[in-house]
Amino acid sequence: MIERSDHPTDAYPTRQGGSTRLTPRLDPVLHGKAGPEEPGPLSPTQLAAYDRDGFLLLPGLLSTSEVRELTTALSKLRAEASGSAEQGIIRERGGTDVRSVFAVHHRADALGAIARHPTLLGAARQILADAVYLHQSRVNFKPGLVGGAFSWHSDFETWHAEDGMPRMRAMSASILLDDNRPWNGPLMLVPGSHRTFVSCPTPTPTEHYRESLVDQQVGTPSREALGTLFEQAGERIELAVGAAGTVVLFDCNTMHASPANLSPRPRNNVFLVYNAMSNRLSEPFGAASRRPEFLATREPRPIE
Amino acid sequence: MIERSDHPTDAYPTRQGGSTRLTPRLDPVLHGKAGPEEPGPLSPTQLAAYDRDGFLLLPGLLSTSEVRELTTALSKLRAEASGSAEQGIIRERGGTDVRSVFAVHHRADALGAIARHPTLLGAARQILADAVYLHQSRVNFKPGLVGGAFSWHSDFETWHAEDGMPRMRAMSASILLDDNRPWNGPLMLVPGSHRTFVSCPTPTPTEHYRESLVDQQVGTPSREALGTLFEQAGERIELAVGAAGTVVLFDCNTMHASPANLSPRPRNNVFLVYNAMSNRLSEPFGAASRRPEFLATREPRPIE
Repeated sequence: MIERSDHPTDAYPTRQGGSTRLTPRLDPVLHGKAGPEEPGPLSPTQLAAYDRDGFLLLPGLLSTSEVRELTTALSKLRAEASGSAEQGIIRERGGTDVRSVFAVHHRADALGAIARHPTLLGAARQILADAVYLHQSRVNFKPGLVGGAFSWHSDFETWHAEDGMPRMRAMSASILLDDNRPWNGPLMLVPGSHRTFVSCPTPTPTEHYRESLVDQQVGTPSREALGTLFEQAGERIELAVGAAGTVVLFDCNTMHASPANLSPRPRNNVFLVYNAMSNRLSEPFGAASRRPEFLATREPRPIE
Repeated sequence: MIERSDHPTDAYPTRQGGSTRLTPRLDPVLHGKAGPEEPGPLSPTQLAAYDRDGFLLLPGLLSTSEVRELTTALSKLRAEASGSAEQGIIRERGGTDVRSVFAVHHRADALGAIARHPTLLGAARQILADAVYLHQSRVNFKPGLVGGAFSWHSDFETWHAEDGMPRMRAMSASILLDDNRPWNGPLMLVPGSHRTFVSCPTPTPTEHYRESLVDQQVGTPSREALGTLFEQAGERIELAVGAAGTVVLFDCNTMHASPANLSPRPRNNVFLVYNAMSNRLSEPFGAASRRPEFLATREPRPIE
């Protein structure tokens, strides 16, 4: 951990050896003073569900033509990525299939534009109660049969440890560009898990992201810690399944995973991470050096 | 392949090099002359569904006390298995967690008795229209978080190639001893796939079962072959989810898989494979030597 006089206090210590600790979240989930009454595209009921569960499904938010436009942009991205050795392009272990492409809002106009979708941008502002910027964007291609799983993790745990995100004031939007079904690797979430911070004992290895983006091991909870969250959720895991065009909003600390894609078809989802301008990155709280810009924006520009 | 004068004709060539071939099934699914009118515990509607899809769910077939008795027997089995180096006990890759235990009907009275459950035994006789014996029995423990996936495969392809099962006249019963949910590694099946035999080109490696029972590679369909089956099914995969006590009956040639168990809890399912007495094993059709008796019974005794 880097110690600097201008470094904010570490509200969520992790990756510092010792044992796993489960501590209550110190930040609100809905940051607006008025809580569920905060103006914006989400109804009080939707805000209350997000507050309670740590996620919210918006079935069929995007139209067929919006989905088609994004899918076309993705096909182009994948074609460009297939022969590229660029850092922001991650491949499946032991294969050539593209697993993820990062910073997609810079790579295609359609992907930059979707971050300004009134409902998505409006929901981010409504929940985070601040101007927002894109901390990260990516596409997970999950190619058929070879698209591997993503281990259980809290995004915030990684962003705090490896990127220096100070507090829990960020929201992800997962945009389903194919029908997501139980058998093609949908997002799975533990309801209510966003209320607990699970520290991870293992110190961050050097250039950990090179490994973690293919198969994350450090920054994942122990079986016992996950057992506690699962129990608190009433032994329940929720699947974010739905038709193409559905969007899943989820809190930065919601424990989530996704299984391998067992279907023979690819399954493309786009992720956009909105962070509050007031929550911009400092130095990493649990790693020796910063991750590259394609993973963690350090020159935030508020989305207008 | 072993050539012997008393060896039956190979109706389903596989593991013989060349390319994958998809050929129509040569055997009936319902072997009784009367088809859906065959007497037994399954209704004509249930038989028709099994015939069409290649599987049938029997929700809540076993009572809570029957489930409890089997679960107790399994706990004992797992405890005995934990320190054992015996061949019929398979562990997860790179770990000590028990993945599967074979020949369980010989290891515990309760597991032997369940094979004689009137509905299970009756359904097997009704579908196979013959006296039946247990070709194989096993428990898949699928421990929480570390319980790995089972690749797509047709059981018959393996039993034909490696055990010498001549024709498609066998039925499996999967007994759910825990609630099976989309996130804890349930059985997944491609409806209608039992009507097509998918040959696998790669010749069987020596003592292949030592590898295949941990992570099957040979005897799994190509992405293209699976794509064809998936398309024929209307781009559909079915999950055999249900409460503890549910039983899934499925044809020996139904293409199936199961994903990793992403929950923190174990998920125990028992499998019983009923084979028609008239379909007893010959020499392997696509392997140099027989597999051990714990995987493939060669001295069949009809279940009474």
